Amino acid sequence: MSSKSSIPAPTVKRLSLYLRELEARFSEDGQTVSSQQLGRALGITDAQVRKDLAFVGQTGHPGIGYKANELAHGLRQILGTDRAWRVAVVGAGKLGRALMGYGRFGDKGFDVAAVFDADPKVVGTTVAGHRVRPLQDLESLVAERGIQVGIVATPADAAQQVTDRLVRSGVRGILNFAPIRLNADGCSIVDVDLTLSLEQLVCQVSLGLNRDSA
Amino acid sequence: MSSKSSIPAPTVKRLSLYLRELEARFSEDGQTVSSQQLGRALGITDAQVRKDLAFVGQTGHPGIGYKANELAHGLRQILGTDRAWRVAVVGAGKLGRALMGYGRFGDKGFDVAAVFDADPKVVGTTVAGHRVRPLQDLESLVAERGIQVGIVATPADAAQQVTDRLVRSGVRGILNFAPIRLNADGCSIVDVDLTLSLEQLVCQVSLGLNRDSA
Repeated sequence: MSSKSSIPAPTVKRLSLYLRELEARFSEDGQTVSSQQLGRALGITDAQVRKDLAFVGQTGHPGIGYKANELAHGLRQILGTDRAWRVAVVGAGKLGRALMGYGRFGDKGFDVAAVFDADPKVVGTTVAGHRVRPLQDLESLVAERGIQVGIVATPADAAQQVTDRLVRSGVRGILNFAPIRLNADGCSIVDVDLTLSLEQLVCQVSLGLNRDSA
Repeated sequence: MSSKSSIPAPTVKRLSLYLRELEARFSEDGQTVSSQQLGRALGITDAQVRKDLAFVGQTGHPGIGYKANELAHGLRQILGTDRAWRVAVVGAGKLGRALMGYGRFGDKGFDVAAVFDADPKVVGTTVAGHRVRPLQDLESLVAERGIQVGIVATPADAAQQVTDRLVRSGVRGILNFAPIRLNADGCSIVDVDLTLSLEQLVCQVSLGLNRDSA
């Protein structure tokens, strides 16, 4: 098995997609799955599937394929989704509310443990079952509730400051919806930029390309 | 210049990011920008910047760098964002509403031309200035309003059927927020999977990695 920290980002993305496919279609006891089946579901070659899985120490059984439950278990460990993650959502505007209502975060082990907003009119209201807290409580609640991940859904001009406070409070990962590039030393960041996704789409349309996973 | 249709997806993503940086920081008349400046802003090498830009026929001037306005103009043409795109949003639930309220779509030339929902209680209400139309009007409105791009923000079990109808109506690109893999022959698709982004983030946290753009 290769050193974990050297897994390339596109491989990580595919590992997530393999796991999703396993959970959707190969979750019965004793089920097996072939690299061909996984490849077909993702639109990639079976050779790529075997390479990705071997890269993280998952090998199939000759003539059988992979034992689906074993493989899913191994992928969850590698991806960190076998643990529960406590999440803070910062920004309870339209986007933050939509994210909390998205529903599937909870199924995947992401537990929204606190919601913050800067607007006094929003603080104290309830969003998807969570009472919105003032930003000034961020440091204390992140520590008290053992929050490891922050979702930044603030306007662009507030995002860096919020990020600095999350990182100083001990948050280790940030999912960034604000349309700016955040600096966060020692913290993992995934940027989700909806306008960028739409730009990529129209570029593909212009060029007659087919599919990308954003 | 390389054939347009062979631009790899990661390059397209970086071209979008260069354009964003140019528009944010190098938009004054006569301003120049170096590959170092663009590289620093994106956290990549200046060699990669020059390679990407040369790939789409954009070359710098020795001792000057790139003329920023020229470069931005060229990138907009390549990315298709020099044109207006007419967009239909299907699904006016929390996510659809958040997307329409996101605001920056309009700035980027994406014009929401129709909003659809299957729920009779939602049809007829107004969301971000758009009256929600019943799904049965989809085909006629897509044709009538020249809609080229569909945003699928429906529940997973409705997404494929909606996609089939959008594609049959002549839509050429789909931004998919539903957590399933859509089939759409001859149509470009970009999948935006928020749970997947969060999974990628915690995987990076687990592995101590730094940044990915989702």
